[in-house]
Amino acid sequence: MKKTLTYKILDAHKVSEDLENNKMSIRIDQTLTQDATGTMAYLEFLSFGIDKVKTDLSVSYVDHNTLQNGFMNADDHKFLQTVADKYGIVFSKAGNGICHQVNVERFAVPGRTILGSDSHTPTSSGVGALAIGAGGLDVACAMAGMPFTIVRPKVVGVKLINKLRNGVSAKDIIIHLIGLMTVKGGVNKVIEYYGEGVKTLGVPERATICNMGAELGATSSVFPSDEVTLEFLKLQGREEDYKELSRDEDSIYDEDITIDLASLEPVASCPNSPDNVKKVSELKDIKVDQVLIGSCTNSSYYDFVKVASILKGKKVHKDVSLGIAPGSQQVLQMITKNGILDVLLEAGARILESACGPCIGMGQSPATDAVSLRTFNRNFYGRSGTNSAKVYLVSPEVAALSAVNGYISSPLGMELNEFSMDVTYPKCDSLLYKPTFKSEVVMGPNIKPIPKFKPIGLEFDAKVMISLEDNITTDHIMPAGAKVLPYRSNIEKISEFVFSNIDEGFSKRCLDNGDGVIVAKTNYGQGSSREHAAIAPRYLGIKAVIASSFARIHKKNLINFGILPIELDIEADLLDEIKVSWNKDTIKVTNVTKGKTYERDCDLSSEEYNLISVGGLLNTF
Amino acid sequence: MKKTLTYKILDAHKVSEDLENNKMSIRIDQTLTQDATGTMAYLEFLSFGIDKVKTDLSVSYVDHNTLQNGFMNADDHKFLQTVADKYGIVFSKAGNGICHQVNVERFAVPGRTILGSDSHTPTSSGVGALAIGAGGLDVACAMAGMPFTIVRPKVVGVKLINKLRNGVSAKDIIIHLIGLMTVKGGVNKVIEYYGEGVKTLGVPERATICNMGAELGATSSVFPSDEVTLEFLKLQGREEDYKELSRDEDSIYDEDITIDLASLEPVASCPNSPDNVKKVSELKDIKVDQVLIGSCTNSSYYDFVKVASILKGKKVHKDVSLGIAPGSQQVLQMITKNGILDVLLEAGARILESACGPCIGMGQSPATDAVSLRTFNRNFYGRSGTNSAKVYLVSPEVAALSAVNGYISSPLGMELNEFSMDVTYPKCDSLLYKPTFKSEVVMGPNIKPIPKFKPIGLEFDAKVMISLEDNITTDHIMPAGAKVLPYRSNIEKISEFVFSNIDEGFSKRCLDNGDGVIVAKTNYGQGSSREHAAIAPRYLGIKAVIASSFARIHKKNLINFGILPIELDIEADLLDEIKVSWNKDTIKVTNVTKGKTYERDCDLSSEEYNLISVGGLLNTF
Repeated sequence: MKKTLTYKILDAHKVSEDLENNKMSIRIDQTLTQDATGTMAYLEFLSFGIDKVKTDLSVSYVDHNTLQNGFMNADDHKFLQTVADKYGIVFSKAGNGICHQVNVERFAVPGRTILGSDSHTPTSSGVGALAIGAGGLDVACAMAGMPFTIVRPKVVGVKLINKLRNGVSAKDIIIHLIGLMTVKGGVNKVIEYYGEGVKTLGVPERATICNMGAELGATSSVFPSDEVTLEFLKLQGREEDYKELSRDEDSIYDEDITIDLASLEPVASCPNSPDNVKKVSELKDIKVDQVLIGSCTNSSYYDFVKVASILKGKKVHKDVSLGIAPGSQQVLQMITKNGILDVLLEAGARILESACGPCIGMGQSPATDAVSLRTFNRNFYGRSGTNSAKVYLVSPEVAALSAVNGYISSPLGMELNEFSMDVTYPKCDSLLYKPTFKSEVVMGPNIKPIPKFKPIGLEFDAKVMISLEDNITTDHIMPAGAKVLPYRSNIEKISEFVFSNIDEGFSKRCLDNGDGVIVAKTNYGQGSSREHAAIAPRYLGIKAVIASSFARIHKKNLINFGILPIELDIEADLLDEIKVSWNKDTIKVTNVTKGKTYERDCDLSSEEYNLISVGGLLNTF
Repeated sequence: MKKTLTYKILDAHKVSEDLENNKMSIRIDQTLTQDATGTMAYLEFLSFGIDKVKTDLSVSYVDHNTLQNGFMNADDHKFLQTVADKYGIVFSKAGNGICHQVNVERFAVPGRTILGSDSHTPTSSGVGALAIGAGGLDVACAMAGMPFTIVRPKVVGVKLINKLRNGVSAKDIIIHLIGLMTVKGGVNKVIEYYGEGVKTLGVPERATICNMGAELGATSSVFPSDEVTLEFLKLQGREEDYKELSRDEDSIYDEDITIDLASLEPVASCPNSPDNVKKVSELKDIKVDQVLIGSCTNSSYYDFVKVASILKGKKVHKDVSLGIAPGSQQVLQMITKNGILDVLLEAGARILESACGPCIGMGQSPATDAVSLRTFNRNFYGRSGTNSAKVYLVSPEVAALSAVNGYISSPLGMELNEFSMDVTYPKCDSLLYKPTFKSEVVMGPNIKPIPKFKPIGLEFDAKVMISLEDNITTDHIMPAGAKVLPYRSNIEKISEFVFSNIDEGFSKRCLDNGDGVIVAKTNYGQGSSREHAAIAPRYLGIKAVIASSFARIHKKNLINFGILPIELDIEADLLDEIKVSWNKDTIKVTNVTKGKTYERDCDLSSEEYNLISVGGLLNTF
């Protein structure tokens, strides 16, 4: 049978299959973690009592908590570094850059499976790997050599034809696609790119597209590995990692989409959702207060070549603050060597550390009511740290031109060729450390043991602690940002912040009222892989989430920590009394207050059923 | 009469003199503010109802609150930018660098008086200006054209002979001097440098020395303006600002100190005071966790030339995090152009934004119990954001070498000549804006009006709200750092944090108990110029501070906001009942609880007496 690239890689890694439940388990070759999810993932890994990781390669990155307001972050970094050294994990120190950017540069290999405790892990699929985001516990299990189970994904074939016009970029392709498919359109799917247009896109562009595929809720995205990939790997000194990979001609996709690259124009994700897509030309004359260029989506050398060719000889508008965070130490070295950084400085850009930074609300919060243009991947409510800000997601070209003009501007048709892409990437691995297996693990006072959870039981009474709408993100559930992220290693403390951006009383209400459920509509838990969005509610007594549908990673996280995800659309108000009874076959939910009962088949696999029955995956060890 | 350089400049600016009280008032030519003190200073300036500043030059810098965790900082920046534009003030946007570094590069002029709302304003004296730190209200008054009153300073003549050995730097000169004179040794004095050794020091080195002279509590420090100054100004494209200036030969100093530069060796200020000075050779083998190079003390191009010559071809030790914050956009441009930045990156340095940053606890807080080597000027308890950290202040050479070795190391004897100082400084003024007098002032929701204070009255009863030891710093009184600095425009909110690093209950105790006094020993209020250390206690009901002695700027701030500073060494415990009665002649303090009475002459000038009588300077407008 003709195979898609997706299933070529999946089948080559298949360990087992559960066709009844439409699941498959695959071997994981490589893992990555970042510090905001990594401390928890390694605490979980340590609890297994294994002496070293079983993967081909595991890398632990520090890129989220790099501002370091208080001892907690530096303590976390030390914990991560000593764990990495002791257990055979490569360590990427703070300052080395954003995990996904560095992973594409230095580690991702065509045809390999990569599991990462960050939802944007698919960035590495830009080289033809199959990279998947997951909760920390799943990554810990993969490091312990266990297979990773996914719903057998449907494959969406996206055929790219022709080529982009000047001023239109990879970012516009993926924003366009998100506009088509919506933020829940990719759940349990892999987005596979093919067609003649693929060859017109370099690896950094492919990485941008795979990166933001996470905003579709997709399991992953994937590009073929071809001569463009080879060229990239050569320039990185990694020619030996190359392997040609593509779909079988005439393989069949579950869904087909064709994008004529020549027909695209610059687009933007408007506030407050990546799928709120408009043409940039429709937004012109909106005054801009802040422009930020960076993040795992658009911080490659290639991106800055384009930015610099727009900024050369220009000045940033006086009312705009332009912040630039190169994606990695390598990128910063390249733009330093070849004059691009100087162009950015002459124009009046602020140079921020190579890190995730403002993308996860670590700094650069806009002013009250400000318009902020960002080359990032998410513009969820409150994520910037300023609830009243209007955040637009755009390409680097739109960002740079708008920074100069002071209002949103379309670069359609602009020629941008002043800096050469014909360069050898420096292999600046000064902040990458190979393990020596010698360190003792150092654990600062803010790093607390993971709480033990009791099973929820097959029947329970609970109150509705919050009743929500569609597309609730993990940023709604468990905010990131400078105030909250330092507590990622401390569940008791971080639980104070659950839903705090939209419902300040949530945490106290849970503690006051005992067992609870969360009620929501479609696509609950979209966004990040942070398992804290499951653990912290569980800590507060949440036993089930009742939602019309779930995002993939978050649903897995709920199950991993013993919370029952119930796919039901129920009517419920705050503090309604709920009765839940469930078993392998059916789930019954009664809203006692409203006198309504809902019933459905239990859609859990037997593995998932067992996990919840015993109170979560950690209780099985 | 033969004059010192100090009195040449002072007398040329003298407006009036009050010999009875040993005071003089001088005309201020230039002012500078930074954002952490500036918002309050400009709120004060606005309350005067004047249509433009009356100085030759006023510059408003943004360098403290550049991390921007929350809308407050960006709102403050917008407020500062619009005020500057409307009232004729040059604006230096976030990213342009640290006020003192930029001011030396672009604005400080030999022979001029400069008043700045930052205690390290004397940095600009490195070019032969007389630059003085003051509270924001004093700077607001200077912008309104009012003279500035100081105690007629004693002048300490520091004769520099011979020249520094390799590996010894300007930082070692000033740390050595602070060790000699202590953190209170310079109160109401100007430190004037002369002698053949002066010519061996470039302007950046002179600026370093003047900068950290603030740690003596000195009114200012000053260097002659000579051919070295001319050369610096030429390279900055400011030759026309040059004017030769020096003391009259044989002028008499109030105190004489001679430093044989050739006899110095690398020294460090050990935790937790700048005057806790030890030789670096005595500290060797102390393991280092963090090294930070930057701040207004050591972030010049010259400093990075030395750092790069040590780091070239080396790697930062794996257990050390090396953070580097260039002092200005100009410095960053220079190190970008000439290969120094590349050396730093190859070695594994983290590049932070050009700003004050970690020096005022904005980020890069060390790990629990960590040893942090910093090229900064203050290592007060808690200032780093990590109370348990051990912070050492050192030269850039000691910092760089220790970062490589992983333990504190002395560079004595090292030759450091790999990067040329023979360069023209780029005049990168992309982030400097001349006023257009067109903006409307924009005030975000966190910018609150300054509270109105009633006069304390000539007799009052109060309770002792805290009883303290020697050398209490403004960081003890009103902490800086990422958590607190965003509230510098909001007195009610920031008052919650008064003394919070050493006495969490202080704020609530004041609100619960009504009128209060603070009791302390010598040198109360050393450190920063932040007037919040007076306004916020006043807001909490503090009517007097009773201390054995006061730091200069803080004493002025207390008077400016209607708090009575009483120089008495009294016995007092928490919540003792105190009765104060005072007039132009005498001040009487009774500790009712202990049954003890203390009396002294009133040392206030009639101007100061009047200010306190009416409830502070703002009540006079």
